[in-house]
Amino acid sequence: MAAQQREISVSEFFTKNRHLLGFDSPTKALLTTIKEGVDNSLDACEEAGILPDLEVSVEPTGNNRFRVAVTDNGPGILKNQIPRIFGKLLYGSKFHRLRQSRGQQGIGISAAGMYGQLTTGKPIVIESRTSKRRPAHRYALVIDTRRNEPVVKKDTEIPWDRARGTRVEIELEGVHKRGRHSVEAYLRQTALANPHAEIHYMGPGEDEPLVFRRASKKLPEEALEIKPHPYGVEVGLLLRMLKESKARKLKSFLQTEFSRVGATLATRIVEGAELKTTTSPRRVSPEAAERLICSIRQTRIAAPPTDCLSPIGEERLLASLREQIKADFYGAVTRSPSVYRGNPFQIEVGVAFGGDLPTDELVGLYRYANRVPLLYQQGGCALHKGLLATNWKSYGLQQGRGALPSGPMIVMVHIASVWVPFTSESKEAVAGYDEIIKELKLALQQVGRQLSTHIRRARKARDAARKQAYIEQYIPHVGIALQDILGLSERQEKKVVTTLTGTLERSRKV
Amino acid sequence: MAAQQREISVSEFFTKNRHLLGFDSPTKALLTTIKEGVDNSLDACEEAGILPDLEVSVEPTGNNRFRVAVTDNGPGILKNQIPRIFGKLLYGSKFHRLRQSRGQQGIGISAAGMYGQLTTGKPIVIESRTSKRRPAHRYALVIDTRRNEPVVKKDTEIPWDRARGTRVEIELEGVHKRGRHSVEAYLRQTALANPHAEIHYMGPGEDEPLVFRRASKKLPEEALEIKPHPYGVEVGLLLRMLKESKARKLKSFLQTEFSRVGATLATRIVEGAELKTTTSPRRVSPEAAERLICSIRQTRIAAPPTDCLSPIGEERLLASLREQIKADFYGAVTRSPSVYRGNPFQIEVGVAFGGDLPTDELVGLYRYANRVPLLYQQGGCALHKGLLATNWKSYGLQQGRGALPSGPMIVMVHIASVWVPFTSESKEAVAGYDEIIKELKLALQQVGRQLSTHIRRARKARDAARKQAYIEQYIPHVGIALQDILGLSERQEKKVVTTLTGTLERSRKV
Repeated sequence: MAAQQREISVSEFFTKNRHLLGFDSPTKALLTTIKEGVDNSLDACEEAGILPDLEVSVEPTGNNRFRVAVTDNGPGILKNQIPRIFGKLLYGSKFHRLRQSRGQQGIGISAAGMYGQLTTGKPIVIESRTSKRRPAHRYALVIDTRRNEPVVKKDTEIPWDRARGTRVEIELEGVHKRGRHSVEAYLRQTALANPHAEIHYMGPGEDEPLVFRRASKKLPEEALEIKPHPYGVEVGLLLRMLKESKARKLKSFLQTEFSRVGATLATRIVEGAELKTTTSPRRVSPEAAERLICSIRQTRIAAPPTDCLSPIGEERLLASLREQIKADFYGAVTRSPSVYRGNPFQIEVGVAFGGDLPTDELVGLYRYANRVPLLYQQGGCALHKGLLATNWKSYGLQQGRGALPSGPMIVMVHIASVWVPFTSESKEAVAGYDEIIKELKLALQQVGRQLSTHIRRARKARDAARKQAYIEQYIPHVGIALQDILGLSERQEKKVVTTLTGTLERSRKV
Repeated sequence: MAAQQREISVSEFFTKNRHLLGFDSPTKALLTTIKEGVDNSLDACEEAGILPDLEVSVEPTGNNRFRVAVTDNGPGILKNQIPRIFGKLLYGSKFHRLRQSRGQQGIGISAAGMYGQLTTGKPIVIESRTSKRRPAHRYALVIDTRRNEPVVKKDTEIPWDRARGTRVEIELEGVHKRGRHSVEAYLRQTALANPHAEIHYMGPGEDEPLVFRRASKKLPEEALEIKPHPYGVEVGLLLRMLKESKARKLKSFLQTEFSRVGATLATRIVEGAELKTTTSPRRVSPEAAERLICSIRQTRIAAPPTDCLSPIGEERLLASLREQIKADFYGAVTRSPSVYRGNPFQIEVGVAFGGDLPTDELVGLYRYANRVPLLYQQGGCALHKGLLATNWKSYGLQQGRGALPSGPMIVMVHIASVWVPFTSESKEAVAGYDEIIKELKLALQQVGRQLSTHIRRARKARDAARKQAYIEQYIPHVGIALQDILGLSERQEKKVVTTLTGTLERSRKV
């Protein structure tokens, strides 16, 4: 048995576990590939302060085969970085920082390229240009999965019509479908949460691109990078940070490596652990580190700064919903930021109710994480669980046991965080940390109360209208009867009917 | 931005994404640690043909801190293999083969050790002995997460009371809970699917171990290793196999590298791709490889051999259910093996209905993969989805829209496969491949029909009993009335009552 023990490269691992990356079916593979490209492009544009102009195309190249391309007007990528960014799993700039962005793992786009290579044998092709004064480069890459390293197949300079930007092209085995899990639906939901982006989509066999127009010229507030918060740190991580820090003294270590720790607080933490502020971080023993953790947990430290988060905001949520969904009632709630395991996050909920929405189906749920729509694994997602665990009956909706509520409603749920805890590398569902579920429930309850006021009012109005219609029906007969009994003239009878109708009208307004 | 681009070690990745490995809450962390230890121990014993004797202990060592140990009587581990097996992620013997086993990724136990190290700073301690004639070794290890490599802290020879076996000890931050997600519940469910194992569990603060007795001295049928099936291979993998194969000719390449391909079939595949049987595998171009794939898909090839699978079996399923759950009806179905993406798998379903089970709750679902109980992420699991998508109303159960059926029932679902497609590295839920869902639905329908026959019969019997009780009530009155009207004697009246009761008795038996 011992002879069979061996190392598994991360690419081999994901080749065999492709469903972990969202490539478990040909339909999903096509969508995931586009999603990874679009995520990267939007991140790149926003980081560079550029309003994103994206072109997405899906071109059939054979039986269940497509060539997918995503082009952006972002800052471009330096030539020598291209092979590893696109041809190596677990490589990137977003993993080692705490800042809200779509990508965070350094896996997505390389995995899409690897899937293409696996199913068609074709390399991933990247074109990129960083400035007008430099030429554009074209690379064709494959991944050596045994080593998880890029192999450059072609490397040429090419003419390019844009001054800056990146284009990624992947040929893959896939299936193009319409409906809820279509490319179009995904792009529509993306546009809903990213009104500052303009996206042109050329679907397979189409003559004209489908255009999602930019609805706002305002870039989202820039999300800033933050340092870890002391409450999120455990012994093991602290020991590593102590070993790797450039700080010479324990006090300055705490001040420079963590957010929300000033001189006074640093001294208090160090003294609480019965250590000296001047001790060298490298000399702190595991036992002393444990005392430091205890001291941190006993010290009141302000919540992490929240300028690392960039939520959509209630106003823009409402505007987006009004734009896209015809309904009678719209509601939105953006909660204040909260923290799970030291990571700031923020929950937002928007609902649209009534109107043309179907009345006897389960409510529709749109899930988002850092403005990216989540299309799969709804059942395993904390955002879905929160909806399920809320008692919607008390807000006037029907709800079966263990099921989503039913009624004419769309619920949009967004989590923004410096580190979204996805349940798998495919980033399709959010893990159920207690703090996240709690915030979500509070947001849903808030919006639920708004909704129930609307539903109650609407129901009251409907009841009154029904009652009135019922009475109205009898007024002429009452008139005729009175005419008969009291011997009223035609004119008198008409007057009685008018008076009765008037009374009814007035009572309705009360 | 370019300067920030860098490699991410797989240990760093999982440190930040610990929920992917099942360490997102302290309760779950404790359970996952035990699970990884038990999985490894059961695999090791079965592979060596040894009936497993396991000792599991959880000992409190402070506030929310526990020392977990799992000891087995397996074959032990060679000294020089220990550091990497326990101190390096993505290292192991089970990944590179196609064979049913609990472990498959080479992540689990090292990840548990890493979590312990992270939360308590303590190393993972391994003791192992491979034979009576050799001493036992004790290792204390930590993982260097920046490099994903083991660092040996201690390496000593120690006396050991067992001739062979392995003991793993991890100290970690955790929470010990009772109920559905408790260690006890997990071990009970493990025993249900592994009647050949004896498990002694010493919980925190207990004086006596809880013993799950061995119910069968028969080891499960040995699952054999198989080669990949041609239907599961795509261009990219084929190209790599062609490059790495030792076969000199295309024909022998197909015969030796794949299951179910003999000489005739190999020739037919090669000719179907317009290639020569004598071509060297290394010389096959990507285009030719594509033609080979096409030819494979157009050729009828027998389903993969199924001796690589070792299901529990209908008989043992029924016995286990009868042993553990008091009910009125038991049913079990083991489907024939099927294939997803070239990987053989097999679905089994067992149900227990009625008896003491609660009547007005949703049915209970026990999920298993390769005999391992799955305790979390039910909502995201294909095994759950299959249950949800079955129309239980037609089998006589109540079922709300989008919800599990309700009724006095436990459903046990097992998937056995050479490669279970888990939705994340924590192996908590099965990915929804169409073939798996289809097989599961067929199994549920089969067992559903058995169940509905039982429910119908039970209902009929109940109705008849109710009707009879109703009539019985009136027989004495009828007797008295007849006595009155016809002037019957006391004796005659009694005879009438006896006759009527007799008639009723007889009619009940029809």
